[in-house]
Amino acid sequence: MSNLCIAQSGGPTAAINASLAGVLREFLKDESYNKIFGLRFGITGIFTNEYVALDELFDTEEKIDRLSLTPSMFLGSCRYKLPDVDSDNTIEIADKTYSTREVYEMIFNFFSEHEIKSFFYIGGNDSMDTVLKLSEYAKEYNYDIRICGIPKTIDNDLPLIDHTPGFGSAAKYIASSLLEISHDTSIYRIPSVTIVEIMGRDAGWLTAASALARNEYSSVPDRIYLPEVPFSVDSFVDDVAAVLKEKRNVVVAVSEGIRDRNGRYICESESAHDKFGHVMLSGAGKYLENVIKDTLGVKVRSVEVNILQRVAGHMTSKTDILESEMLGATSYKAAKEGKTGVMSVINRVNPISASSDSEYLVEYSTERIELIANGVRKVPREYINEEGNDVTPLMINYLKPLIQGEVDLSYRDGLPLYQGILKNC
Amino acid sequence: MSNLCIAQSGGPTAAINASLAGVLREFLKDESYNKIFGLRFGITGIFTNEYVALDELFDTEEKIDRLSLTPSMFLGSCRYKLPDVDSDNTIEIADKTYSTREVYEMIFNFFSEHEIKSFFYIGGNDSMDTVLKLSEYAKEYNYDIRICGIPKTIDNDLPLIDHTPGFGSAAKYIASSLLEISHDTSIYRIPSVTIVEIMGRDAGWLTAASALARNEYSSVPDRIYLPEVPFSVDSFVDDVAAVLKEKRNVVVAVSEGIRDRNGRYICESESAHDKFGHVMLSGAGKYLENVIKDTLGVKVRSVEVNILQRVAGHMTSKTDILESEMLGATSYKAAKEGKTGVMSVINRVNPISASSDSEYLVEYSTERIELIANGVRKVPREYINEEGNDVTPLMINYLKPLIQGEVDLSYRDGLPLYQGILKNC
Repeated sequence: MSNLCIAQSGGPTAAINASLAGVLREFLKDESYNKIFGLRFGITGIFTNEYVALDELFDTEEKIDRLSLTPSMFLGSCRYKLPDVDSDNTIEIADKTYSTREVYEMIFNFFSEHEIKSFFYIGGNDSMDTVLKLSEYAKEYNYDIRICGIPKTIDNDLPLIDHTPGFGSAAKYIASSLLEISHDTSIYRIPSVTIVEIMGRDAGWLTAASALARNEYSSVPDRIYLPEVPFSVDSFVDDVAAVLKEKRNVVVAVSEGIRDRNGRYICESESAHDKFGHVMLSGAGKYLENVIKDTLGVKVRSVEVNILQRVAGHMTSKTDILESEMLGATSYKAAKEGKTGVMSVINRVNPISASSDSEYLVEYSTERIELIANGVRKVPREYINEEGNDVTPLMINYLKPLIQGEVDLSYRDGLPLYQGILKNC
Repeated sequence: MSNLCIAQSGGPTAAINASLAGVLREFLKDESYNKIFGLRFGITGIFTNEYVALDELFDTEEKIDRLSLTPSMFLGSCRYKLPDVDSDNTIEIADKTYSTREVYEMIFNFFSEHEIKSFFYIGGNDSMDTVLKLSEYAKEYNYDIRICGIPKTIDNDLPLIDHTPGFGSAAKYIASSLLEISHDTSIYRIPSVTIVEIMGRDAGWLTAASALARNEYSSVPDRIYLPEVPFSVDSFVDDVAAVLKEKRNVVVAVSEGIRDRNGRYICESESAHDKFGHVMLSGAGKYLENVIKDTLGVKVRSVEVNILQRVAGHMTSKTDILESEMLGATSYKAAKEGKTGVMSVINRVNPISASSDSEYLVEYSTERIELIANGVRKVPREYINEEGNDVTPLMINYLKPLIQGEVDLSYRDGLPLYQGILKNC
């Protein structure tokens, strides 16, 4: 008998089940393996003996189709970083304590007992760190197993990959939200300022995607602020005042991660306390709302784009879903060819240019995991304008292909018909 | 020459242009009138002489189709309540001051000069008050003009109508958001509580719509709190603790308008101040987040469903859009028949029952505006369970038909292709 194993890890996206679907489609076509196990709650499922037989749950293309369009993790997730092999810490998983040695032994005992030939881990930076550690451990102790990563993160901040699965859908959701917010905010005579706060503590990719909302009747967002450029509250107020001279209703997009010259988060500067004595983290948007109220005295509102930006299965990018499947398939094939300690990647064939005429073509391959794990890819300076309050045509041309296309989502009783996610009781 | 005039007022919805489209479709078929003028910024467009010739802008069914699916107000809006005819206040509109007498004279002079035979006002409670005052004034001074209201409000709180245009789309958006939030929140081992705050200061209809998210794999929202029932923080904590015994990840929906026994908003109880001395209105959700953190000590988060709940044109209910058009058409026909001082209404043919087998059939008619203007329709007690922490099957059967069907929205470059809204500079 010869089997496969897969798990999902980190924060949810709208495309992480598409990568699982990509692996399952390859498995369905392939007769080399008997079973494919899905660990519950990422790698921690091994420690609680929680896993499912995915080959039994998804035995038709039709079932896999629905899984592919289902947001968040079908198998559940974890936020767990494996300890260094050499460390002698103890680690707690699901209320039990393990030594570092026990952790690695339990994982590889599980793989051996279940005759796992390849293990796939879908996730972001921390998950790729797990792929790195497990592949190095397997090599050192001569385990006959391939350990392969499949990328995902709405933050789009993994190195050596043009863009990450989940990002395109989040970008599409953010751009369409900004378009609809422009409809909402531009209807009154009274001057107004709307500050939209978008996810991304360290990298501004998601906030930049708001620029795609602009069209022939709307300049929204009028200004865009990313964490890659030091944020000045004074310049921000000047910017907003300048736009208010041109139009009545101003909308700006700010990253939750904007920081001042000293690297302090803008939202940290604000420390209000509630009656329990809690620090009320107001967020960058809320903070700037108060600043504008005080300095410009206009009607002002802040809007936090909520967790739907990562799980809006009803507004996914078809490009993102198809590419996420392909990255799952690419890892599957790489493992079958004997590759280990790699992550599947997608890269553009044609370079991105400030003019928009380069065709969007991609190719899939794999990269060594040690070059990716724990790295962060920020927005390059040339994707941001000189003043640091907008993006450049390079950024627009980078982003545009990633949100293209709509999926054929089924509805039942007026709501998206998703494959459920496994019960968590 | 004989013309028509129309305007939009109040807060935006995803269906208010559908009602405008309904009127324009009737106009296109009808040869009785020469022109149909659209006032900018509600009734205030008269005072600044801002209006457009809608017959020129929308001269084909195709253009009207796109308008119908465009969220927010194509013509712009205002929040303006006409002064009582007898009052001798002065009123400011667009930086100019008018006496009450001048206000009415300018409005009716505009109607006379432009040979307006019927004026349609699409809006909520305040707008229906305008319809009432203008129709009474016309009667008193013998103006030959029909003044008709067309309802809209996501709050669903107008009397004498089964439900209001815009509500079904907002309800669909809220239910699908809760479904996706259930995917987002149910993936970790760690117990968690998510509090989702939904619009509705006085009526709980929108918050109730979250119940439609429940399905065979998700009980989210696990509890629902509407403003119609006095809110007890202690009972709330007990409720959440009880659900946490059954499942790891709890999601509750609360209306922004929940109030304690003394009628005080829950969010008012919380008064933190920022460093400028501003009261930071934290909202009911944020307040309860801190309460749960303090009492139960679990991971907790609050999510405010943002302004997209009223303008998510990408997630409208086909039923809502079609009915909104029909209500526009109903007012058009009523005015043509000589009716004035009325609002078009929609009502169910079959009574709503706790069992779900009554077919959803509606009929359109008009009601006297004085029975509607300034009234508020709250959620009846029998739509809420005895404990006051959930809705009953009656509510589900009331809501379900309203979110049915998806519209055929066009996309361009990955984003919804809307008719723009008129520039506001």
